[in-house]
Amino acid sequence: MSTTAHSIAYDDLCVGQTASQTHDVNETDLQMFAAVSGDNNPVHLDETFAATSRFKERIAHGMFTGALISAAIACKLPGPGSVYLSQQLGFMRPVKVGDTLEVQLEVLEKLAKNQVRIRTRVLNQQGKAVVDGEALVLAPDRSQAITMPALPKFILQG
Amino acid sequence: MSTTAHSIAYDDLCVGQTASQTHDVNETDLQMFAAVSGDNNPVHLDETFAATSRFKERIAHGMFTGALISAAIACKLPGPGSVYLSQQLGFMRPVKVGDTLEVQLEVLEKLAKNQVRIRTRVLNQQGKAVVDGEALVLAPDRSQAITMPALPKFILQG
Repeated sequence: MSTTAHSIAYDDLCVGQTASQTHDVNETDLQMFAAVSGDNNPVHLDETFAATSRFKERIAHGMFTGALISAAIACKLPGPGSVYLSQQLGFMRPVKVGDTLEVQLEVLEKLAKNQVRIRTRVLNQQGKAVVDGEALVLAPDRSQAITMPALPKFILQG
Repeated sequence: MSTTAHSIAYDDLCVGQTASQTHDVNETDLQMFAAVSGDNNPVHLDETFAATSRFKERIAHGMFTGALISAAIACKLPGPGSVYLSQQLGFMRPVKVGDTLEVQLEVLEKLAKNQVRIRTRVLNQQGKAVVDGEALVLAPDRSQAITMPALPKFILQG
C-alpha cells in the first residue's frame, strides 16, 4: 500500500525543529540486516555464541541503527527529496531484540546552499542513547507531498 | 552453509594494513534495504519517479554502502570480535543498480586500549569514491578463526 510523505523545503526548516520515529527491534531485523549487508557474525545470529560474548546475548548490527536514522531523515525531516551528504555515528550502547528505539532528529544549523546540519540521536526504552551523531543533508527546494511506494515484503526462506 | 572468518587481534594489526571486499549492487539490495530500514522513498523504488529526479534513475540508499563498510570491518579487518565505536561517512556520489563497489579498509592509527582508526573508502567500477570516511573500532584481544553462521536467505513476497 502506497502512503504519502511530506518533504520540508530548506526555507521552511527552522533551527530547533524536531522529528522522531520509533521502531521495535525484532528477530527479523537482525536476520535481514545480516542478509542485506553480508555481515553474518555469530554475535548477531547465533544465540549460543552470543551468550559467551561481552554482550551476553545477540545484538543488532550497529549500522542497523544507522539505517533507521537514514530512514527518518529521508522520510520525515527533511523528508523525500533530501540528499544525504554525510553522517557521523557514535555507537554508545548495544541494541538487542525487544528494544524499542526512538530516532530523534533536531535541526542544529542552516548552512548555505540548502545544507542543513541535523543532530541524530537514538534512545532505547530506558531513555539511554544507543547512537549519537550528526548528519549533513541537502534539503529539498520546495515542500510537497510525495507518494511513497509500498515497502517491499520479504520472507525468510527455509 | 557456515564459513570461517579470521579475526585479527589488536597486537597483530599494523598501520597501513589493508583489506577489501567487492559487491555487485542489484535490484534486491535496493528493495531489501528499503524493507529493513523502512525507507520507501520513490527515488530508490520507483523507476518512473526516479527518472524525473536529479539522479535520472533509481539510486541505492546511502546507508546501504554504510552497511557494506560495517560488514567488511566486522568480517575482515579486524573481523569477528571487533566492536564498532564510531563511523563517519561522506556520501560523494550516487550508487546505482549494476555498479560494482569495492570497500577499501586501511588501518590509519593504533590507539590506546585496543582502539584502531580505520579509513573506510568505497569506490565504484570507475575507481571513483562513492563514500569516504573513517571508523573507530575496538579490535579483538586475540586472533582466531570464528565459525560464521550461514547468511539468512530472504525472498521477495508477491
